[in-house]
Amino acid sequence: MKIGVLNGPNLNLLGKREPEHYGGQTLAEIEALLEERARADGSELVFFQSNDEGDLVDWVQQEADRVDGWIVNAAALTHTSVALRDALAGSGRPFVEVHLSNVYAREPFRHTSLLADRALGVIAGFRASSYVFGLEALTAHLRAREAG
Amino acid sequence: MKIGVLNGPNLNLLGKREPEHYGGQTLAEIEALLEERARADGSELVFFQSNDEGDLVDWVQQEADRVDGWIVNAAALTHTSVALRDALAGSGRPFVEVHLSNVYAREPFRHTSLLADRALGVIAGFRASSYVFGLEALTAHLRAREAG
Amino acid sequence: MKIGVLNGPNLNLLGKREPEHYGGQTLAEIEALLEERARADGSELVFFQSNDEGDLVDWVQQEADRVDGWIVNAAALTHTSVALRDALAGSGRPFVEVHLSNVYAREPFRHTSLLADRALGVIAGFRASSYVFGLEALTAHLRAREAG
Amino acid sequence: MKIGVLNGPNLNLLGKREPEHYGGQTLAEIEALLEERARADGSELVFFQSNDEGDLVDWVQQEADRVDGWIVNAAALTHTSVALRDALAGSGRPFVEVHLSNVYAREPFRHTSLLADRALGVIAGFRASSYVFGLEALTAHLRAREAG
Amino acid sequence: MKIGVLNGPNLNLLGKREPEHYGGQTLAEIEALLEERARADGSELVFFQSNDEGDLVDWVQQEADRVDGWIVNAAALTHTSVALRDALAGSGRPFVEVHLSNVYAREPFRHTSLLADRALGVIAGFRASSYVFGLEALTAHLRAREAG
Amino acid sequence: MKIGVLNGPNLNLLGKREPEHYGGQTLAEIEALLEERARADGSELVFFQSNDEGDLVDWVQQEADRVDGWIVNAAALTHTSVALRDALAGSGRPFVEVHLSNVYAREPFRHTSLLADRALGVIAGFRASSYVFGLEALTAHLRAREAG
Amino acid sequence: MKIGVLNGPNLNLLGKREPEHYGGQTLAEIEALLEERARADGSELVFFQSNDEGDLVDWVQQEADRVDGWIVNAAALTHTSVALRDALAGSGRPFVEVHLSNVYAREPFRHTSLLADRALGVIAGFRASSYVFGLEALTAHLRAREAG
Amino acid sequence: MKIGVLNGPNLNLLGKREPEHYGGQTLAEIEALLEERARADGSELVFFQSNDEGDLVDWVQQEADRVDGWIVNAAALTHTSVALRDALAGSGRPFVEVHLSNVYAREPFRHTSLLADRALGVIAGFRASSYVFGLEALTAHLRAREAG
Amino acid sequence: MKIGVLNGPNLNLLGKREPEHYGGQTLAEIEALLEERARADGSELVFFQSNDEGDLVDWVQQEADRVDGWIVNAAALTHTSVALRDALAGSGRPFVEVHLSNVYAREPFRHTSLLADRALGVIAGFRASSYVFGLEALTAHLRAREAG
Amino acid sequence: MKIGVLNGPNLNLLGKREPEHYGGQTLAEIEALLEERARADGSELVFFQSNDEGDLVDWVQQEADRVDGWIVNAAALTHTSVALRDALAGSGRPFVEVHLSNVYAREPFRHTSLLADRALGVIAGFRASSYVFGLEALTAHLRAREAG
Amino acid sequence: MKIGVLNGPNLNLLGKREPEHYGGQTLAEIEALLEERARADGSELVFFQSNDEGDLVDWVQQEADRVDGWIVNAAALTHTSVALRDALAGSGRPFVEVHLSNVYAREPFRHTSLLADRALGVIAGFRASSYVFGLEALTAHLRAREAG
Amino acid sequence: MKIGVLNGPNLNLLGKREPEHYGGQTLAEIEALLEERARADGSELVFFQSNDEGDLVDWVQQEADRVDGWIVNAAALTHTSVALRDALAGSGRPFVEVHLSNVYAREPFRHTSLLADRALGVIAGFRASSYVFGLEALTAHLRAREAG
Repeated sequence: MKIGVLNGPNLNLLGKREPEHYGGQTLAEIEALLEERARADGSELVFFQSNDEGDLVDWVQQEADRVDGWIVNAAALTHTSVALRDALAGSGRPFVEVHLSNVYAREPFRHTSLLADRALGVIAGFRASSYVFGLEALTAHLRAREAG
Repeated sequence: MKIGVLNGPNLNLLGKREPEHYGGQTLAEIEALLEERARADGSELVFFQSNDEGDLVDWVQQEADRVDGWIVNAAALTHTSVALRDALAGSGRPFVEVHLSNVYAREPFRHTSLLADRALGVIAGFRASSYVFGLEALTAHLRAREAG
Repeated sequence: MKIGVLNGPNLNLLGKREPEHYGGQTLAEIEALLEERARADGSELVFFQSNDEGDLVDWVQQEADRVDGWIVNAAALTHTSVALRDALAGSGRPFVEVHLSNVYAREPFRHTSLLADRALGVIAGFRASSYVFGLEALTAHLRAREAG
Repeated sequence: MKIGVLNGPNLNLLGKREPEHYGGQTLAEIEALLEERARADGSELVFFQSNDEGDLVDWVQQEADRVDGWIVNAAALTHTSVALRDALAGSGRPFVEVHLSNVYAREPFRHTSLLADRALGVIAGFRASSYVFGLEALTAHLRAREAG
Repeated sequence: MKIGVLNGPNLNLLGKREPEHYGGQTLAEIEALLEERARADGSELVFFQSNDEGDLVDWVQQEADRVDGWIVNAAALTHTSVALRDALAGSGRPFVEVHLSNVYAREPFRHTSLLADRALGVIAGFRASSYVFGLEALTAHLRAREAG
Repeated sequence: MKIGVLNGPNLNLLGKREPEHYGGQTLAEIEALLEERARADGSELVFFQSNDEGDLVDWVQQEADRVDGWIVNAAALTHTSVALRDALAGSGRPFVEVHLSNVYAREPFRHTSLLADRALGVIAGFRASSYVFGLEALTAHLRAREAG
Repeated sequence: MKIGVLNGPNLNLLGKREPEHYGGQTLAEIEALLEERARADGSELVFFQSNDEGDLVDWVQQEADRVDGWIVNAAALTHTSVALRDALAGSGRPFVEVHLSNVYAREPFRHTSLLADRALGVIAGFRASSYVFGLEALTAHLRAREAG
Repeated sequence: MKIGVLNGPNLNLLGKREPEHYGGQTLAEIEALLEERARADGSELVFFQSNDEGDLVDWVQQEADRVDGWIVNAAALTHTSVALRDALAGSGRPFVEVHLSNVYAREPFRHTSLLADRALGVIAGFRASSYVFGLEALTAHLRAREAG
Repeated sequence: MKIGVLNGPNLNLLGKREPEHYGGQTLAEIEALLEERARADGSELVFFQSNDEGDLVDWVQQEADRVDGWIVNAAALTHTSVALRDALAGSGRPFVEVHLSNVYAREPFRHTSLLADRALGVIAGFRASSYVFGLEALTAHLRAREAG
Repeated sequence: MKIGVLNGPNLNLLGKREPEHYGGQTLAEIEALLEERARADGSELVFFQSNDEGDLVDWVQQEADRVDGWIVNAAALTHTSVALRDALAGSGRPFVEVHLSNVYAREPFRHTSLLADRALGVIAGFRASSYVFGLEALTAHLRAREAG
Repeated sequence: MKIGVLNGPNLNLLGKREPEHYGGQTLAEIEALLEERARADGSELVFFQSNDEGDLVDWVQQEADRVDGWIVNAAALTHTSVALRDALAGSGRPFVEVHLSNVYAREPFRHTSLLADRALGVIAGFRASSYVFGLEALTAHLRAREAG
Repeated sequence: MKIGVLNGPNLNLLGKREPEHYGGQTLAEIEALLEERARADGSELVFFQSNDEGDLVDWVQQEADRVDGWIVNAAALTHTSVALRDALAGSGRPFVEVHLSNVYAREPFRHTSLLADRALGVIAGFRASSYVFGLEALTAHLRAREAG
């Protein structure tokens, strides 16, 4: 089982800026944590971060046939990118939408998502754990479907 | 560590009706699953389900001094109950909002929550696992704060 | 054939208060009228009135396996209760939404219903006759389906 | 007692097109059914169907002094015709608004009516029975007023 | 100088119905009054009333090359007819929008006009005098333009 | 019969600025024109112009017992002054709302009036003639009421 | 003179939780204060608090014939309960709406009330004094009406 | 293959009025152009233009069983006619929505269509060519389906 | 302790016009009543009424350093004056917003206040008593703060 | 004559994913089809596809002086990109907006375009033919202008 | 070159109240600073501050023929005064809109301006420097136009 | 002191296209002008322009630790980019938002900014001078803070 982990704009700076919103862990630390979990679980991860909508869409297209599903933290693009929505929907792979912070307790424009209705589900507010839960939920979903 | 698990209207029928939205597990099965996890983790759970807003508010008030936090699936009341919001906020205890189904992929009136901006975070769409993730997130938060 | 007749908040006072909106008949008189019609038609009725959303949801759950359909005058809850909507939809039984007064000629918040899109149909404005028509429509529907 | 029965655009095709929305009965069959009911009740009916707003307004004006009330299924014009609203209100005769389908379970633009606040009441969703109930409700209202 | 006077739906009943909104004069009386004024002023009038949007559009098209301007009381169609707007704008002739009643003191849907921004001006609330003022204003405008 | 003629902000500059919106006549010329008409009609006029909402309200209060009605061109205050609305309504005297330009063909914020629903009627777009029509309409109304 | 004092959800916790919003007095202390005032004034009070909409509606119905008016702090239900509105309106007794905190300075959903347009008046922001003023206002109103 | 070509209000004046919006060709010229194309393609056309919503609905009903699809330029009725929408949908024949002008660059009320979501597609802005493309698109669709 | 009592547009006419909204007492009578209360309480009042927003702002600025708080009935300016809001907020003195009538039962534009979120609280609907309660509330607040 | 053909995000996957929305042809096939048409017509095409808004803007800038017009299928960016709108408008070259699917029959956010009011026209719903019609319309426009 | 500098309500208190929003400089200090700049630049300034909309409009009218342009800080009136907009537009002189604070980071009602679309430009957030920049921008514009 | 100057999409074409909106200076000329000012002032500038949101975010991240503040003309991205907002806010450096044209006098979608509430202030409408003022304002702010 192979999972693509997508991180959107500004998430490369995790742990360095605004820790009150996003926690003190770096993206590398979160990826290491996920790697460890995935390895224990026998699944494989492929990571990608970009500040660029176009690069993220490119990557989703390239990996679509190689992965079984996605963990998606589109960050700012969650609220503005129809292109990413179309790429994920077009990939034919299920995805989980995750957020480090509780977006519902921040500015109103962060309360709506252009991705959520196409996702399996949404997890927001638990820092790195949002990704870990997302990974667990996605692999469980894939195994259930396989077993299905 | 003691956690209150609140379930709102119609969740007593889990597993019996509309499994396409809510999955095939009964509430008792979900509670058993959570018990097991909590026991392994050394924490204690107290459960309550009601179809009645007033009873849920009463229960939150009664348990507020006995629990360290809440797992809340307010179901239909998520979208309509200021009273439950006030009770949870007034309890002074952190809570996680959970949903069995992906509410963002259902009717528009299910896309807004009167609780979410007061929650630690929100988890929606993963059936019983939404509760399990919620429990993990809440206990991790409480331990971090304690250690804090 | 067995039909549940649900009456929401304040309808226990029918005939006693605000007759200009609701007519001069008491709820008991309306129930007697319905009983008579049902008996003539060979069907059976079970009545419930409560001012409490939770009690109404409980009752719908309890009766769901015993009735073939519902006549629903949710009164004030028509406009505010997602919980009752979920209970009726979850019952798997068809229902007719009825109102004594013409709600479309009253305050704007009475023009929208959280139940109507899940109902067979809506009847508003004909006092006790709204129930009688609802009963006829529902039993006709059930017979047609049975015959179907 | 004489009642005008108005049918708006496209209802001449009843029974021939989109039976999933409107049922399998033709307008002639519905009119025959109503005739029979009216005859049994000692009242008289006059029917009119047109696809043209202007013709419908003309007819309401012509019949206004000859009828005691109206059964109105304005179909598409329910949602768009101020002219028909004005004609019916100007006739000084009470009317019942009826719909074959449950308009509240269809497109959003069908959820609002320019007639409903001037009607005695509204009946939607019961195919031909919507008319029959409308006829009963209207004649009952007229008799009560007369007796009044 | 020749002026077309257009009257929309239900205005043929003026003086007969709802005099509290529209006054006690019949349309014939208003037309006679206007005739008299026009004759004194050396201008000529051509009248048309219809309950039918299509007929009104036809008439505007037919008369467009024969008249110098329009007095328009589109009644209910003021608020709903893009077709009449297009016909009047397409006629290349200036028009004045008139209303018998003060539409701004009635239902909200009567507060907007699809014609007003294409008109020379609007006069509402003065019964038959709204037409008389409209006629004066239009002929003055036409003479001023002619005088250039 | 005595009529108060109120002119709001910037109307003292009539004829001097933006003639494409307001025409080339000065306010003094318009007042002279109205005087002449009033004299011929045996009625008396009292004029007031101010750029100040408070002064206009003061004037309405002072003149309220001395006039029989008002001609009101509140200009910019039409769209923003609840105080002027309250003063006019509180005066117990009928008023006509007039505008030199066709406000419905200008910026959207000029399409709504805080006065119009309390007025006898509205006249917009006919330059000085808007006042003349307003005077005629008001005196006719007052005479009709008197004759009543 | 007998007055019913209704307190809605979470007000039983007054003085114990969130004193920055609601002040430091308990509900018992507020009730004692009101009792004292009422005794001095020769009027009688009957108190009820519940977290349950249905119980509050029941109580209003039961007491309606025994009281002369109501002091209503519906708390969270102020913003969501059509049922309580209907119960109070149906009681035929005047009521005053009171709030401990200044609801207009809190979340936007607390700025609207489903009760206020049916109330004598509204008092918000003065802690226990809101009730005391409400009591004075209501008894003054009742005496004035009596004296009438 | 037979195609119905529907033209709505004011299109009979094409080429004569407002050429800046609609171009200089008459409707007869456009129809001749379409005829020629259709003949070359072996398909047959039937034309209808009316300024009257009712007549257009009548015509759609009459031709529905004789044509294989529609080219629809409903003009002003595009934005206001639920009746035409229902007639076209009820015909069971696919249609293409065409406009001479680019409606998205004109008044806001021309940006929404009551037909478009039921159409195969929409073509706007290319004068007579909008029809020609519509014809090509429709016949291609019909042939593909046939070949299907 | 010194309190400024501000009265906005048209309140100088209290008792003379529209007593159904504002009661029969004159402003002088209300001021006398307040004086008496204040004297008994050992506090001092300074009154100001104007129909002019600018004068009211001037007065607030002049008195700001001489008073300890404000009673504010801004009347029509409640709903439209950002300047008065800024003046009151800028004065650094607490204020109570009062209204004679129940503004929530009147036109929708009277339901919003530009002052309320900066006020200690709001009292509406109790005629002269609204001021008396406001005075009590304000002096109690000032004493509590002093005692603080 | 030289035409730039711009394709936005995810269109590189045409024919491979979601054929129910976008048809079975690849972008290469569509481009070949357009090439063939252009060659026959004596015009030249230059193609560009990118998933990246910035790259698309760069390309429009680079080609602006070399092309005579544009065929634009901005896909997801149609609804979100002011930058592309500015680039196209700034190019000084006319463009046609095309869509493979009928965007008006899909999610509401696809019903609005940030490009359409600056386009010659819009064509939506005809798969590859949308481009072909766009090409014909654009070249016809350019020739007419040249001839003009 | 002569410039009018207009300051709206409450700006006379600059430097004395709420320095966190408006800075610590008094209006006199800002005016002195501007004087100095203007003198160095060979231009002349005329200042006016009022808390009264009417006085500000009067002043704009009086100075319109004596000044070449305006620096406008309308403060609270920015968001509510159509009269000031009309006066400035009617003056035929260009103006720059300035604000001491960053209005876009304050309450939502401060985000809209009734003046901005008629201004040369807007400068907000730089305390006294907003005026200085405004002066530079305006004189540069006037010189360019003169030179132009 | 070092300042980053960010220019968004299409600004590389300044001086070449649409000079009526953006003026005749090229971006290089504006940068040269700014350089000169900065040099005179002893501060250093670093410039970046891109048509790509991702590149702009990358650049902000890279320069964040090297600059003391930003001059930001995000052009089209002002209205659509949450990512750029997050990057600027995350940089921990103050910024000034500048626009060449008066965006408030253009299309409505240009009236809102996703950056403005995080900026020190906003300057719009003064062509190259907007940048110069921005630079002065920013360096003054930085010096004041340093001195502070």
